[in-house]
Order: sequence, then C-alpha cells, then structure tokens
Amino acid sequence: MNHLVTMKDLSNENIMQLIKQAASFKHTEQHQKEYPHFVSNLFFEDSTRTKVSFEVAERKLGMHVIPFDASTSSVNKGETLLDTVKTLEAIGVEVVVIRSSEENYYEELLANTKMKIINAGDGSGQHPSQSLLDLFTIYEEFGTFKELSVVIAGDIAHSRVARSNAQALSKLGANVQYVAPPEWSGEFDCLPNWDSVLSTADVVMLLRVQHERHQPDQSFGTDTYHDLYGLTVERYNELKDTAIIMHPAPVNRGVEIASELVESDKSRIFKQMENGVYMRMAMLEFILGGDQE
Amino acid sequence: MNHLVTMKDLSNENIMQLIKQAASFKHTEQHQKEYPHFVSNLFFEDSTRTKVSFEVAERKLGMHVIPFDASTSSVNKGETLLDTVKTLEAIGVEVVVIRSSEENYYEELLANTKMKIINAGDGSGQHPSQSLLDLFTIYEEFGTFKELSVVIAGDIAHSRVARSNAQALSKLGANVQYVAPPEWSGEFDCLPNWDSVLSTADVVMLLRVQHERHQPDQSFGTDTYHDLYGLTVERYNELKDTAIIMHPAPVNRGVEIASELVESDKSRIFKQMENGVYMRMAMLEFILGGDQE
Amino acid sequence: MNHLVTMKDLSNENIMQLIKQAASFKHTEQHQKEYPHFVSNLFFEDSTRTKVSFEVAERKLGMHVIPFDASTSSVNKGETLLDTVKTLEAIGVEVVVIRSSEENYYEELLANTKMKIINAGDGSGQHPSQSLLDLFTIYEEFGTFKELSVVIAGDIAHSRVARSNAQALSKLGANVQYVAPPEWSGEFDCLPNWDSVLSTADVVMLLRVQHERHQPDQSFGTDTYHDLYGLTVERYNELKDTAIIMHPAPVNRGVEIASELVESDKSRIFKQMENGVYMRMAMLEFILGGDQE
Repeated sequence: MNHLVTMKDLSNENIMQLIKQAASFKHTEQHQKEYPHFVSNLFFEDSTRTKVSFEVAERKLGMHVIPFDASTSSVNKGETLLDTVKTLEAIGVEVVVIRSSEENYYEELLANTKMKIINAGDGSGQHPSQSLLDLFTIYEEFGTFKELSVVIAGDIAHSRVARSNAQALSKLGANVQYVAPPEWSGEFDCLPNWDSVLSTADVVMLLRVQHERHQPDQSFGTDTYHDLYGLTVERYNELKDTAIIMHPAPVNRGVEIASELVESDKSRIFKQMENGVYMRMAMLEFILGGDQE
Repeated sequence: MNHLVTMKDLSNENIMQLIKQAASFKHTEQHQKEYPHFVSNLFFEDSTRTKVSFEVAERKLGMHVIPFDASTSSVNKGETLLDTVKTLEAIGVEVVVIRSSEENYYEELLANTKMKIINAGDGSGQHPSQSLLDLFTIYEEFGTFKELSVVIAGDIAHSRVARSNAQALSKLGANVQYVAPPEWSGEFDCLPNWDSVLSTADVVMLLRVQHERHQPDQSFGTDTYHDLYGLTVERYNELKDTAIIMHPAPVNRGVEIASELVESDKSRIFKQMENGVYMRMAMLEFILGGDQE
Repeated sequence: MNHLVTMKDLSNENIMQLIKQAASFKHTEQHQKEYPHFVSNLFFEDSTRTKVSFEVAERKLGMHVIPFDASTSSVNKGETLLDTVKTLEAIGVEVVVIRSSEENYYEELLANTKMKIINAGDGSGQHPSQSLLDLFTIYEEFGTFKELSVVIAGDIAHSRVARSNAQALSKLGANVQYVAPPEWSGEFDCLPNWDSVLSTADVVMLLRVQHERHQPDQSFGTDTYHDLYGLTVERYNELKDTAIIMHPAPVNRGVEIASELVESDKSRIFKQMENGVYMRMAMLEFILGGDQE
C-alpha cells in the first residue's frame, strides 16, 4: 500500500498491524541510525500538534525531512497541488504528508502520481493518523475493541475525528454512541444528554468545539455548552473506575472538559499525544515497507 | 572558486566539470554519511521549487542545513544583507544560497565577506543553477553542444533563464535563436513566429509567462499567446523525432505549452527537475571543493 | 539544573563552569556524531541572530531539531503556552528554547511542567545566553573579571542585556558604570557623558537603540544620539590600547557606533557572535548534563 489517506481503505488486519508496529516502536524505542527516505510535510492548514508529531516520528525513524513552507509555495504562483507534488516527486521526495482544507484533495494525486501519500487531515473529512492513535490508545488500555462501550461527545457533524473513529471502532467490534446538541448531530443518531451512558461507558471521546467554524450567534455559549454537553466534575465522578477520557486536543478548558480534569487519573489526553508519535512512525513504515524487502 | 553567482564567470571547462560531477552524483548516487559543512538558504523571494531542490541536494551531500526564515529576519529591523551575511559567517555558516529580487545583490557581499555564495536568482538577472541544470539536461541527451539548434521562446526580456542560457549555450557552440512577441524581445534579435525553426530545432526551451510581472492591459491574452507563441499540439507534431522540450516550471498549462504536452515523449520538464538536484550537489561541491584537498 | 531562564539563578561557579565548557567546545571543536536529544526553538518574537545561533549550536552537538513555526502555531487557536509546552513534552521534545515578548513567561512553565527550558529573551527582562556569551568574550580577553572597568552605554532602561550583564558582572568582581541619556536611565545611576570613563574603561558595551520601541518625537534624533552618547571615532581614539568594544547586534551604524569602527581592532562584535554558538552549546549541555551520567 503506497498511501494512507482514509480509514475506510484499511482492513481490520491493517489496523491491528499498525497498532502492533506502533507498540513495538514504543517499547523497544530503537533509534534507527539511517532510514534514507526523503519526506516533506505539506501543511496548507495550521496544525502545529500534528505537524510536530510527524516531524518527531520522521526523525526518530532517521528520515530526511525536507522543509516545505506552504505559505510561500508556488501554489501562490498559480501552480496546482498536483504539479507541486509531481515536482517534489521529480526532485526525489518519496513521501508527502498533507494537511489541506480541501476535502478529498488526495484523489487527484493518487490517480496521477506515484507519490506515497499520508493524509494528515482534509477539510471535515478524514484524519487517519488521529483515528489510529486513538485506536492504539484504546487497545493499549483494554487489549481489545470487542464489546467496548465508546461514547463520542460534541460537534459530530463537523469533526473529521468522529467520522473516522466511528467507522473504524464499529468495524472492530465496539459499540459507539454519540452525545451532541441537535445543531451538531449531522446525519448521526445522537443522544441529547449524558444520562444513559455515563455509568456504562468504557471510553469517553470528547471533541473540540471549533470556535473558528461556528457563528457567534450560536444558540448557546461556552458555559451553557459545558453544562449541557461537557465533561463536568459531576459527570466524571459517575464514570466507571476503569473508564478513560480522550480528546484530540487542543482542549478548550472549561468547555468540552473541566480544566481540572485535563490531567485527571482517567484522562489519556497526553498519552494520546505520546502515542501519536509511535503511530505515525508505524504509518510511515507501513507505506514505505514495500521498499525494504 | 568560492562563489557561483553568474554564468559569465564560468569557463567552458568549469561548466563541463560541473556537468560531469552532476552526472557522477546521478549515476553512483553514493549517499555521503557526513559532509560537516553548514549551509543556509536565504530566500527573500518565494521559490519553493528551487529552495526544495537545494534542500534535497544539501541533505544528499550530508550537509547541516540551518533554517533561515527571510520573512522574520533581522533585515526587518533595518539590518543590511551584508551584516546578515557577516553574522551568519561569524556564527559558523560556510555557504549561503541566496534568492533576492535585487539585481547584483551579491557584488557587495563578495567584496566585503569571505562567505561562499551561490546565487539562486537575482531580480531579472542571473540564475546559474537553472542554467546549469538546463545545460546538464541537454548534454545528457545529445552528448555535445556543438551545432545544436536551440530555440528559446517567450518572455526573453524579463527572463533570467533566457539570458544565462543564451550566453552559455553560444559559448559552448550551440546556435541559439529566439521566438518572442515584439513587446518581450528586449535587446534580443527575435523571430516573430515559429515557422522557420520548427523542423530544425533540437532543443525547444519554453519560458514562463510571468503573469505577476505583466500588466493586465497587455496587448494579448493567454489564449492569443498560446496560439501565436506557445507550443501547440500542431507545432509539436512538426518537431524532429529527436527534438526535446524544456521549461523551467512552474508551467502555465495551455499558455506556454498545451497541457497534454507537459508529459509527452519529447518533454524533459520533469527530467530537468530531477537533474536540478544533482547539479546543485555539483555546485556545492564545486565551491567547497577546495576545502577537501 | 533543568532550566536556564535568568542570570540571577546562576552562581559564580555555574557561570565559570559554563565559560569553561564553552571554551572547551571552541578549542576542541569535536563534532559529536550523535546526541539524541530532541529540542525545539519557540520564537514568538523575531530574532534571527539568536535563533540561528541556537540552531547551529544544537546541530554541532548532534541534537534533533524539531521545527516550530510560532506564526502558525496552535497558540493562534487559543491554546496557552503552557498547553503547547506540555504537548511538546508529551510528543517527546526534551528541551525548548523560548523567545517571548511576555516578561517572566517561564514561571508558569517551570511550575507546571518538567520540560527543560532555556530562556532566549523575555520582554525587557532576561536574556541569559546574550549575557553569558558577553561574559565568555570578556573572560577570553582578560582571563578574569576582577577589577575590570566595564562601561555600559545606551538605552539601559529598556535593555534586557544591560540588566543581566550588570548583575552578573558585579557579582564576578567587575566595576560597572553606565552612560545614558536621562530619559533612558531607568532606575540606574548613570553618567550623563563619556568624559570620566573613556581613558580607564577596559570593556565598552554599547546597547542597541531600539527604534521600534521609541516614539518618533523623542527629544533627540539619531545624529544627536551619536554625537552625545555613541562611540565616535574621537572617543575611540581616547580608549586604552587594551580596551575592547562590544555590541549585542544588530548594529545601527552611525548611531551607537561609527560605521568604520564596527570591525576595528578593538571591536569584538563578530567575536561575540562566534562565541555565542559555543556558549549556547555549553548551556544545552549544562541543562542536559544530568542525563548523561
């Protein structure tokens, strides 16, 4: 497989292979001296966290990272993304990690180049590295996905994370439920409140309220959101002892989650970030693997 | 030689030495483990393609690349380019690759510092790495420059590529002719159309129409340009079997060249990009070479 | 010690240890093949000189440098600096070098994370790497600080350099005096002119006139400043043979110092830049040292 652009292309076996490779990187932490592949990170949308995580993963593998500044790129001179990628291919870049606001941008690239592509997020679409690091974090905790009760709460309609995770978790045997305000339920069948799921959830996945996507005249403010849909201290105390809390970050403290819960015992928020590096190493290895044999 | 800022400083022997070194890098592709020289790329004008190509070349050589963000540099605090370069010299940077909109910017630097300088383009002036990779691509194809018929078409007056190439190709024995609209002929003696050169040209070098430099009230639009001066499919079909097409990129598809010809059999456009990396390795080796003996 | 954020945390013994380590790096210039620590440079204020110097120091040590673009960071999405640093910590970054316009920004970070932090300048506060490279340059010249006569001239009130240096130099036994216009004297006891110190000074430290911090309706222009408080050629000629001139750069030629003196015999301005790299290597080694034992 020479690309990894959407979760739905991955079989359950692929996902388990990626999780096991990530775990192996995490536990052996063998720093490769030399992995002479050239990679470039094309981030047309800001996302420091994801970009830095890929950068660390690439360097831990020993890759050569070629800087690409999207804000000054030739795309500003009217060059298409396709021609940019073909140029990088000609110059010797073997893998591009792309973040774009344009949904499905990768389809034209896959049809017209041989470049290896990792999708680091497209519009409101897919964000497989986030999904896979979430899956890795859950698997690390429970050792299985079967029969796990997963609750995803927040802006389901606009969240790339929610869509990818929902698909993959269901395929792997988990039971997924949603808690969301009606305005943000999209095509999903959502619960209007936490009441029925708090005491049974194994995994609570909170989504970021994306202020930048919402109008100021929203029907509720951030305080109201926290009271109705956020993880308050009261709700936290009703969770099972073994339940875990996840969030893709950056967190809006006091909105999706009470500030004092960000680093609470059940929180795996910083663990997710740590695991993200190992999963991204596994993804790079996954699409480059064929070259090693 | 501790700089490479203009083609006219290079003898035919220098050029052949660079071409042979580039070919050697291309065919042996020996990745050097360690070439402990510090280089910084100072791009005061956007040019992803050229910058990325130098970045890959530097890393293939094993150099240490020190990031320099022109948009936030101390030049904004009123520091001169000369003081910036002297600072980098004091800090331990040994080579700077500079792209600037200011013509002949390098003269003051050469007179007042010992820094090794590669000119990656100045104003409408020189762009030796583009010229040299073009020469490398032509030599790779024909094994000689003698008696080759080269046609350069487009905005001769504003093209740094045209000037550098014209000088060097003539010196190496090629016959150079130009096709250009009268408005863009500058001081060159240009043919007004393709008629007399299509069936005899060995090399067709197309220049980019630089929309950003031209006024909107130009006497012709892009369609008219394509019909009169661009490489249309009809003209392509009249070329010799052995002729090749070159373009410095990025291409304006449907203007300088019909979109379907960009990757046609005779096109060497992506080959030029590939060769650019090896030529830039050769240029770096050329100006650092003295240190190795 | 896992941070180096202010000069006043450093004992005289610490300072001498750093100076000796820097001298050792300078004179042996042993390039370490591998120093597998991850570092990121968070520059929220422009400062090419300091940033490039840290970048070279990090690479000379063999560290992995993770790019961080402050202008596109998640801080723009409302993330706090604390959460950004905790994120980098989770991702595997071990050291951050931070430049910020916010005074004492580091206190919250030190209280709430285990990240190793080097302060590369905060507001009008501290700038320890500049102070330490100044101290290294003085020590290299005189072999001692005891009884040295140091004159600091210029905008004392707004200069982070002046404050750090004044504290440290006095602690190390030097006699520090100030020359400054009354408007820029701050809480310091300043001489109104050079008359009494020119013939006895061992070290003349000139401070940058920070045009960007001052109003245009200042009571004097740059010419007047040069005449009254700058180092003119006439004043230079009255200095002792063994005196040295220092400036943190970038220099405003013809304001703090006559242009022709920037590279004069007594000037150590470019020597300071060179020494800065070795001192920054020593600082990184200093805060990472505990890990090596």
